[in-house]
Amino acid sequence: MSLSGFQWAARVSQIAPFHVMQLLARARQLQAEGRDVIHMEVGEPDFPTAAPVIQAGQDALAKGLTQYTPAAGLPELREAIAGHYQTAYGVDIDPGRIIVTPGASGALLLIAALLVNPGDKVMMADPTYPCNRNFMRLFEGEPQLIPVGADSEYQLNVGHIEQHWDDRTRAAMLATPSNPTGTLVGKEALQAISQAVSARNGALIADEIYQGLTYGVNAMTALSVNDEAFVINSFSKYFGMTGWRLGWLVAPDNAVSELDKLAQNVFLSAPTPSQYAALAAFQPETIAILEERRAEFARRRDFLLPALRELGMSVPVTPEGAFYIYAGVDHLTDDSYQWCQDLLEQEFVATTPGLDFGLNGARKTVRFAYATDIEQLEQAVERIARFIRQS
Amino acid sequence: MSLSGFQWAARVSQIAPFHVMQLLARARQLQAEGRDVIHMEVGEPDFPTAAPVIQAGQDALAKGLTQYTPAAGLPELREAIAGHYQTAYGVDIDPGRIIVTPGASGALLLIAALLVNPGDKVMMADPTYPCNRNFMRLFEGEPQLIPVGADSEYQLNVGHIEQHWDDRTRAAMLATPSNPTGTLVGKEALQAISQAVSARNGALIADEIYQGLTYGVNAMTALSVNDEAFVINSFSKYFGMTGWRLGWLVAPDNAVSELDKLAQNVFLSAPTPSQYAALAAFQPETIAILEERRAEFARRRDFLLPALRELGMSVPVTPEGAFYIYAGVDHLTDDSYQWCQDLLEQEFVATTPGLDFGLNGARKTVRFAYATDIEQLEQAVERIARFIRQS
Repeated sequence: MSLSGFQWAARVSQIAPFHVMQLLARARQLQAEGRDVIHMEVGEPDFPTAAPVIQAGQDALAKGLTQYTPAAGLPELREAIAGHYQTAYGVDIDPGRIIVTPGASGALLLIAALLVNPGDKVMMADPTYPCNRNFMRLFEGEPQLIPVGADSEYQLNVGHIEQHWDDRTRAAMLATPSNPTGTLVGKEALQAISQAVSARNGALIADEIYQGLTYGVNAMTALSVNDEAFVINSFSKYFGMTGWRLGWLVAPDNAVSELDKLAQNVFLSAPTPSQYAALAAFQPETIAILEERRAEFARRRDFLLPALRELGMSVPVTPEGAFYIYAGVDHLTDDSYQWCQDLLEQEFVATTPGLDFGLNGARKTVRFAYATDIEQLEQAVERIARFIRQS
Repeated sequence: MSLSGFQWAARVSQIAPFHVMQLLARARQLQAEGRDVIHMEVGEPDFPTAAPVIQAGQDALAKGLTQYTPAAGLPELREAIAGHYQTAYGVDIDPGRIIVTPGASGALLLIAALLVNPGDKVMMADPTYPCNRNFMRLFEGEPQLIPVGADSEYQLNVGHIEQHWDDRTRAAMLATPSNPTGTLVGKEALQAISQAVSARNGALIADEIYQGLTYGVNAMTALSVNDEAFVINSFSKYFGMTGWRLGWLVAPDNAVSELDKLAQNVFLSAPTPSQYAALAAFQPETIAILEERRAEFARRRDFLLPALRELGMSVPVTPEGAFYIYAGVDHLTDDSYQWCQDLLEQEFVATTPGLDFGLNGARKTVRFAYATDIEQLEQAVERIARFIRQS
């Protein structure tokens, strides 16, 4: 019996694999051979989950709290998240508008399922996090990629909305801080975008999964300028809970019942032990730990950014958030994917080629993550310098 | 600012909410008012997760094992699952063909995304688990619902395939044991279906999430007759790990890389603590606990089935798996949803109306779950008898 006559659905071939996975596989192989690989490709904090959160997870297990929760999440967690918006951003959010999801991926899935008809476009910056594009394609929509550069701080702005919005555009999606560029959308820019999108009867989607990780500036939330934005967030990055698979979504009031219905069907509920653990994420002792880590990320950025610039790489806009530097390497190569491969083979430094983030300047750029400690970063810079000298 | 001009995507209105959620909400309200509600509506075992699994979860947390795993799951868990197929079903499965997912829902999502183009049909029995239908619609496909009855033990058979397969049919989906009917597909029927589907270049999807829960018969797996079937399974039901959100998928060799790519995009990885905990699910001491529970489910079925028949309900095919009895109540009502509502209001017994499982005889049927202890079931039967007498 064979599936030889069977073609996979068309969407599958239109969703590109991540190039970094090839590099990661090769990096692991090199490590298995005894090579000392420095990982600057990963999108995951190198810190373990904070102790109070671990403890809360263990306590939940000890109490046998392992059954399904309501699809939209534990009521007390939804309240805690609403409390966090109040404390950290001064914004009042009804807990009923918060839907707890299996990772921010779950939130993105619900939003795409809710908003995107076949052929609908969702406008987003290029470069952007690849899953944002791919979720739209998954639901037969079309990511409307707008090439952005230093002039708009690698973000969509109101000019892009005005120029590119068309009859098939249904929504605009921002990511602030952005992966891969680490840049933020400021309040005024956000207000202008929000008004332009609303004037076109569109939906505004804000990916705020790196929200807590900003350096030298205060983060904000799109909810402070648009109460009807769809906002995606996560316990993975700032809260350091990657493998727990927990995120959330804030939705406009009139979308909640439909999202709840979709969540019942698509994932029943987010992981229960993770939800109980996350209740401890907002406690002062946890926040104190997370703020120390944020300061450490800032020190790393402050080391790595000038070091890469010193090597001639162009980083025209100072990244103020996330843990990435998106650097131009066109003085070194016209194929940054090949460059990343060579760097890995020769100096055992793993990075992510621009190709994973879109088409705009993708072969001229590399993303360097600083989710590894300063000593490693120092060594990495030495190795990269040597690699450049010898190329 | 308003979303007033915005229509949700068309799929949203075509995915029906679960009627049981209304009943559940009302049941909770009644409980909050002090009523003693008996829950026969739930699709969740009433046993806590087995102690060795809880312990393994706590150990993983103590070791800080909370980062992302590979998208397809921990290699050692994939191997343990393959070992389980060998031990329990005598089938050899390459662990590389096993993809660990966030619940069986995650597996179903991947399969639908891989197989279903807009307009494609996936044939399945009516009645069936509603999410099976809804996942197909989510990806712009069409559930091709085949009314089934006692004559085919509430399952698809080869005659259905031959009669109803058309140019747009891409796959046939079985659920064995079935939710809501608790019936199984036997080996010969499975072989005939499998051959008929393969002859039409179709894909066979087997939902085996209740696989370990059979009474008086031995379960099998579709993999034993078709090595290229897409098989969905779960740690939720037999393994008692509902809230951990962990399932798996066995796929044909040539589908694995595409499924892995989709998994990377759609959920990054299944929950890490859950994966480490699940490693303990196959240990002999855990299996011993689970087998005791299975025997308890068998006792409950053996009590409830004759009791419902005694009340005049028709259960023409003895359910041999899962923890449901799907009973005909047409001698009592022509609107079983209303009947369920009245039963809840008058006697505080919560059940699930047939309407949640399709269109075929849906208003003449009710699903009774026996995921609650015998004392509760005895009381429930008394209350139902009184309700019938007084109606």
